[in-house]
Amino acid sequence: MLILDNNYTNFLKNQNLFSTENSELFFQKVLIEKNSHISGYYDLPFAKNEEIFSYMEQNKAFIDTIKNMIIIGIGGSSLGTKAIDTMLSHQPHRRKIKLRFLEHTDPIMIQKELRRIKYEDTLFIVISKSGLTIETTSLFKYVLHKYKLLDNNKKKHLLTISDHESPLFKWSNANNIKAFAINQNIGGRFSVLSTIGLLPLAILGYNIQSILNGAAITNNNFFNDKNNQILKKALFLAKNENNFPINVLFSYSSVFRHFNSWYVQLWGESLGKLDVYKKRRGLTPIALIGSIDQHSFLQLIMQGQKNKTITFLNAEKLSQKQVFIPNISLQGMESTDFVNKTSFNTLLKLQCISTKESIISQNIPVDSITLSNLTESSAGELIFYYELLTSCVGILLQIDTYNQPGVEFGKKILREKFTHS
Amino acid sequence: MLILDNNYTNFLKNQNLFSTENSELFFQKVLIEKNSHISGYYDLPFAKNEEIFSYMEQNKAFIDTIKNMIIIGIGGSSLGTKAIDTMLSHQPHRRKIKLRFLEHTDPIMIQKELRRIKYEDTLFIVISKSGLTIETTSLFKYVLHKYKLLDNNKKKHLLTISDHESPLFKWSNANNIKAFAINQNIGGRFSVLSTIGLLPLAILGYNIQSILNGAAITNNNFFNDKNNQILKKALFLAKNENNFPINVLFSYSSVFRHFNSWYVQLWGESLGKLDVYKKRRGLTPIALIGSIDQHSFLQLIMQGQKNKTITFLNAEKLSQKQVFIPNISLQGMESTDFVNKTSFNTLLKLQCISTKESIISQNIPVDSITLSNLTESSAGELIFYYELLTSCVGILLQIDTYNQPGVEFGKKILREKFTHS
Repeated sequence: MLILDNNYTNFLKNQNLFSTENSELFFQKVLIEKNSHISGYYDLPFAKNEEIFSYMEQNKAFIDTIKNMIIIGIGGSSLGTKAIDTMLSHQPHRRKIKLRFLEHTDPIMIQKELRRIKYEDTLFIVISKSGLTIETTSLFKYVLHKYKLLDNNKKKHLLTISDHESPLFKWSNANNIKAFAINQNIGGRFSVLSTIGLLPLAILGYNIQSILNGAAITNNNFFNDKNNQILKKALFLAKNENNFPINVLFSYSSVFRHFNSWYVQLWGESLGKLDVYKKRRGLTPIALIGSIDQHSFLQLIMQGQKNKTITFLNAEKLSQKQVFIPNISLQGMESTDFVNKTSFNTLLKLQCISTKESIISQNIPVDSITLSNLTESSAGELIFYYELLTSCVGILLQIDTYNQPGVEFGKKILREKFTHS
Repeated sequence: MLILDNNYTNFLKNQNLFSTENSELFFQKVLIEKNSHISGYYDLPFAKNEEIFSYMEQNKAFIDTIKNMIIIGIGGSSLGTKAIDTMLSHQPHRRKIKLRFLEHTDPIMIQKELRRIKYEDTLFIVISKSGLTIETTSLFKYVLHKYKLLDNNKKKHLLTISDHESPLFKWSNANNIKAFAINQNIGGRFSVLSTIGLLPLAILGYNIQSILNGAAITNNNFFNDKNNQILKKALFLAKNENNFPINVLFSYSSVFRHFNSWYVQLWGESLGKLDVYKKRRGLTPIALIGSIDQHSFLQLIMQGQKNKTITFLNAEKLSQKQVFIPNISLQGMESTDFVNKTSFNTLLKLQCISTKESIISQNIPVDSITLSNLTESSAGELIFYYELLTSCVGILLQIDTYNQPGVEFGKKILREKFTHS
């Protein structure tokens, strides 16, 4: 369950912003976008995923032999899976498979990730919507060559996930490699609840139906309430694009560290756009981890330029096993004894609350998302919360939330550097 | 060696900004600050560090038995060591010691970091300037209790580093624990070239004298040239505090990932302050990794609000061992073959250049720092470059670069939550 809270009404000069009329008008726009099928992510919580379940059923014995899963994919092809796995890896049903990513062209990382990897107990999953991402194809070729994965006895160690129409999908079928396809209208950063995220997560042992059920809860809360919290938050953030161009996500626990990266991609790449009037729009995402970044970034929030909204993300209960601060007093350091006998979980929770209160005291817009627990269902709720929020802000900014035209020029230059050298 | 470049002159409406007179005036202010000894970091490149060398000499045999080094410390006590070790860990003389950090109060991380740790082959180093940081003392108590480190035969497995006057230093001496002291005027985020960074790095096998020699090169380049690049960059960034309140560091290679975090702390916590007129000042740091974040944040830079300067950081040569993209053509994906037979190192370098050119084409301020190689000396040059740059910007913003008053209020609230509950 997600528990939501904010202090936004303190900042409303125009009280009409959250009025029923305004919310309802906005709600209708979201409904129109959803029904337009410009993005297929809206429907993912209710998908059947029969192909995944049947693959899992038929390959049970094989999956039990897998010790390493290597995902070859970058951006939206890796961030979502990483986010959910890091959030839930303490779950007892999580299989003891090492999850690794070959995602970028850094030679040091490539060597590190493939150290001691043998194909026999490894499953390679190549994920690229277009099948033409330069990092992914280069790394895929490297792995194909190194492990000779096209030998007949090795083929089941390789899977691909891509677009129905992509050359990767066609190549896989032509070469008898098991290929999963996703719909063309599901963009990378909105794809974690499609096969791109669900297949790896299912192989890792997670209950993917529970993840989807969680997403469906957020979906239903949203579409059954024309005056809901996500709409209000989107209205507030979009309205304050110039006052508060930076949105900080302050997550209390390192289990959220990859969720943070997923959020940065979702927010930055979706909302940094030219609008219908060709004006540069956008909200800049920053993601922090508490309590660590209280010692790094908090000073800037407290006393720097007032250009940031802050969202606190935390979980009521982080760990099954409680860890306590022992009741020890060190001479001269007795002033730290006030936390003795507390669990670290409680200390972290109170650090989050104290930091939040100190930021609110500076008259800075703050909201908070508390997960009641770290389960598949909560993870699904949280993911879909952010996806809907991003769509809502995009509608208000009058941009295309789902494309990324700004990155093409760099790709073109790269290609020229090669062909002209 | 650092190779520096920028396109700042394209953005100068006031051509006087970089004039000799202006630079010289500013240079004198930096000299005054350095000579005021408000911060001791200016002198660190020339320190003798006899205590470290004599500890290393006397404990050679013991250090050879160490397989794990656990640093208990947060913020400035951990980020610098992590930054340099991650940048240089491919060096053949880097000892095979696992470096771990107990830095925050997240119970999941505590259990993870201490899994399978036995005191016999482990060295614990507690680092806290004040000796009163709540995360550090709580984790220290936990470790003291778990491993009974005050037993006489275990004491050499524990070291502390703190302020001469701190209760931790006194407690260590009273309990026959080897304690290193640092000068009071060296703040956490400027402390990596003091014992706080150098002792762990020496134990890991790095040549700390070369790190300092590198820092001395940057120091000498700066103080021997009243018209140097760091001064100009500081003038540009401080002058454009309102036009470009966000500074993005785009580092090409994951070896820089912890350097990124070190930069974010240094920049954010030093520059986010009330100035002498009690006005909120500050530049917001964001750190990215290329090529990964081309698939996450680049779209926002290219088409979002134009409120960011971008610094590219890369290294000429990343890895001793070259890794090549094999000359394989996959049917339907031939358009990706233009990179075949290239090393991943070259691809990454060209991705950096292409991304830089595409951002420059949008008329965005860009500069670049290229390390000729990844060595101790280059790491020292880079660290001191950023420390001097931060000091220079702080002087221009008319703030106290070296304090962090904004974080105290949250600590006070935390204490109240405990004492009143």
